[in-house]
Amino acid sequence: MSAGVRSAVDMQFCMQCGSGAVERRIPELDNRPRDVCSACGHIHYENPRVIAGCLALWQDRILLCKRNIDPRMGLWSLPAGFMESGETAADAAIRETLEEANSRVEVTGLYALLSLPHADQVYAIYRARMLGPECAPGVESQSVALVTPEQIPWDQLAFATIRYTLELYLADLQHGVLRIHAGDVLREDGGASRLRLHAA
Amino acid sequence: MSAGVRSAVDMQFCMQCGSGAVERRIPELDNRPRDVCSACGHIHYENPRVIAGCLALWQDRILLCKRNIDPRMGLWSLPAGFMESGETAADAAIRETLEEANSRVEVTGLYALLSLPHADQVYAIYRARMLGPECAPGVESQSVALVTPEQIPWDQLAFATIRYTLELYLADLQHGVLRIHAGDVLREDGGASRLRLHAA
Repeated sequence: MSAGVRSAVDMQFCMQCGSGAVERRIPELDNRPRDVCSACGHIHYENPRVIAGCLALWQDRILLCKRNIDPRMGLWSLPAGFMESGETAADAAIRETLEEANSRVEVTGLYALLSLPHADQVYAIYRARMLGPECAPGVESQSVALVTPEQIPWDQLAFATIRYTLELYLADLQHGVLRIHAGDVLREDGGASRLRLHAA
Repeated sequence: MSAGVRSAVDMQFCMQCGSGAVERRIPELDNRPRDVCSACGHIHYENPRVIAGCLALWQDRILLCKRNIDPRMGLWSLPAGFMESGETAADAAIRETLEEANSRVEVTGLYALLSLPHADQVYAIYRARMLGPECAPGVESQSVALVTPEQIPWDQLAFATIRYTLELYLADLQHGVLRIHAGDVLREDGGASRLRLHAA
């Protein structure tokens, strides 16, 4: 499944015993509030989720998907979505690329690891080589495209994270070397976002 | 909180409406089984969790923590633990280092990103510079130590992931350059683990 549709939820009823006696408190030996069942003691942990995706390349072209689901339906993204249980982050990136663009890829390395604390997400974007130029929209895509750097639809990108990843890639191309980038996408007060990279 | 104590749980009762009519099925537009409430339709997603930690250095010494909690109590680890909502992975690594070793660090970059599909975990280990040599055990540590590479207790390390990270670091030291490493820690049939790195 694609990015953005799976937000953290509060526990209203205990998922272990069904009791409605759920309270928000700091469990013993912990240091932050959790949803805790006062009937059976079950503690409900919510943690950030990993979104895995591919910077998938065919020759000098980049694979983009036009989203067919909310949020940001109709805008362009890299193939990416929630990492699932039992898979590696690279597996997830490969699977999402197949699901969203019907494109088979080989991961050649990590490209970017970006935390989004306001969204409780961590993006792991992998460099990937398409095994052929074939691509076609999956159910979550309106269309897919292989674009040259000059053809990137900058004003129609779905997420700031995708824009930053593509900007980093173009800068790397100019410098003639692909590096691994790690950092954070921070939400400013006005709603704008800002990229803060760790030193290389 | 430290690594290893927060495993995925099935939803026995719906956490939104309290119904016991929870079934394991593939939701519409999805492609894998989830716990779904047949009373209210709530879908319970379980996703891998991120464990963030530091390869924290003071001069040529590495900060290690002897675990005071299960699993692997009494064995040595890097300071690391579950990334929490609202923080970045690097924030989490810094916080865990403070909680487990009472040591303040500055993250200088990503060091390793390792998926553990058998455990539904992704380890994000950051290079960090200790702001001073001070360290002392937090509540989840029996003791802490600043060790030279020669002093690493290889036969008393808590997790394969930690061993691989330290091995990568020593290899990098030999080559004179610290690189970012990404890959997977895979569990073999016999229970042994194997490191599979993406090409650099």
